[in-house]
Amino acid sequence: MTDSIDYTPPKVWSWTKPNGGTFANINRPIAGPTHDKELPVGRHPIQLYSLATPNGVKITILLEELLALGHAGAEYDAWLIKIGDGDQFGSGFVAINPNSKIPALLDRSEPEPIRVFESGAILLYLAEKFGAFLPKDIAARTETLNWLFWQMGSAPYLGGGFGHFYAYAPTRIEYAIDRFAMEVKRQLDVLDRRLAESEYLAGGDYSIADIAVFPWYGGLAKGWQYGAAAFLSVQDYKNVQRWADAILARPAVKRGRMVNRMSGDPSEQLRERHDAADFNTRTQDKLTGARP
Amino acid sequence: MTDSIDYTPPKVWSWTKPNGGTFANINRPIAGPTHDKELPVGRHPIQLYSLATPNGVKITILLEELLALGHAGAEYDAWLIKIGDGDQFGSGFVAINPNSKIPALLDRSEPEPIRVFESGAILLYLAEKFGAFLPKDIAARTETLNWLFWQMGSAPYLGGGFGHFYAYAPTRIEYAIDRFAMEVKRQLDVLDRRLAESEYLAGGDYSIADIAVFPWYGGLAKGWQYGAAAFLSVQDYKNVQRWADAILARPAVKRGRMVNRMSGDPSEQLRERHDAADFNTRTQDKLTGARP
Repeated sequence: MTDSIDYTPPKVWSWTKPNGGTFANINRPIAGPTHDKELPVGRHPIQLYSLATPNGVKITILLEELLALGHAGAEYDAWLIKIGDGDQFGSGFVAINPNSKIPALLDRSEPEPIRVFESGAILLYLAEKFGAFLPKDIAARTETLNWLFWQMGSAPYLGGGFGHFYAYAPTRIEYAIDRFAMEVKRQLDVLDRRLAESEYLAGGDYSIADIAVFPWYGGLAKGWQYGAAAFLSVQDYKNVQRWADAILARPAVKRGRMVNRMSGDPSEQLRERHDAADFNTRTQDKLTGARP
Repeated sequence: MTDSIDYTPPKVWSWTKPNGGTFANINRPIAGPTHDKELPVGRHPIQLYSLATPNGVKITILLEELLALGHAGAEYDAWLIKIGDGDQFGSGFVAINPNSKIPALLDRSEPEPIRVFESGAILLYLAEKFGAFLPKDIAARTETLNWLFWQMGSAPYLGGGFGHFYAYAPTRIEYAIDRFAMEVKRQLDVLDRRLAESEYLAGGDYSIADIAVFPWYGGLAKGWQYGAAAFLSVQDYKNVQRWADAILARPAVKRGRMVNRMSGDPSEQLRERHDAADFNTRTQDKLTGARP
């Protein structure tokens, strides 16, 4: 790979080489399945196929919050999709999400199972199904959805833009890092100003807007992502910090963040989740040191 | 600006220079208003503050479709927001959209006016308000929202990624163009495969999913954006072409694309729209050559 500046592109782009960097092996210019593979199905109505990335944990946090509120219908099986191994290109996964990205969900409680893909669509689907974390009042509902969609349109600049060029690209390109650092700081400031006037993003109540935004921008504020906390001066966004701390203290958030996790402290990894008791086993492990 | 490769970022990013390229003057690392300016308000219930970018025309297309169906409550005033002049940083605009992006909408038909921002949120808001272009059946509704959210999460790779590095950045960086060209081609293939099995994105009916995706990916397929039709071999995506042609033939789409337009054929620019008759004036101009 070359990185010439003032490069002249060819008349027609062609797939002549992998584009380099972390995750290069899973980037392709074509869609569709690469291999036949059925997905496993567990005993619960909701089947989640995911990984504990920021987009993945949105869904496990909401499901754990719904269960904490007593919505037994939110019981779920969470299956691990190893994106580094290409699991998202298996035929079964593509049938649920033709975009080959986690998370993907199948709701088997309906007469015909319903596929739901895109994390924002899944949050909205579950919030409406259970009537929770999305206000009924039209003004409050609208403000919640404003911020939910804000997250969907903004985070690609954080993940696919800043994170990629700062942490994953094979070489560091000043122009690209500058461009996306500026945008991510603007986004953090949008949030910080909103959270200066409002306890949560949509108003006084915690909602799917917070659940969507927290794993990306709360995670960034808490220094989890890209090793970029100092670079982006995340400590300056005081209201984002206050809000992230409040969300992080919620037991359902702690549980949700463990599900489908493949890295970090082993006692905080619940690679698959099929029962509420699965968390107890993990906590027990942590207390006794029983598992590595 | 330098574009050194294998650049070492500083410990803390700081805003020492504009980042270059088209639109550099409106990119900032901070949010909030830069100046006091009230927004104009017209006589209709719906006030739209926008520009005919792909995100802007989503809304004017939907409003024209709703009016064509006989929903008189969808009558609207469309005001021009000149983003190159920084209109989106005026205090009145920021009060409706704290993210300072077009489109933004104010619904004055409610007892307390409701602000709606993010084009996806506006599409959903209007579709639910008028009960149109979003199926009631849960499976069809869910599939519509899957694709609506797909658009929101995907188009930043087309606009903020590919379009920026191919057409707007001050220098052409091979790695960045390759990265985003690969992703945009994958996205076009996702759509092409879906449209091989389904007339419209969510099934047999035209919906807000199509209205969201058409201005970005239909526009790309028709060669309107970035001068990149040949580079991306857009003619190969036969089903996207068929679907884009079908949408483009709709009279409401033709009208919606004219509103808040500042470039191209003057007879196809309706800079502000305050009445359905405004289009007739423009058509008349085109027939008689009355205006430049």
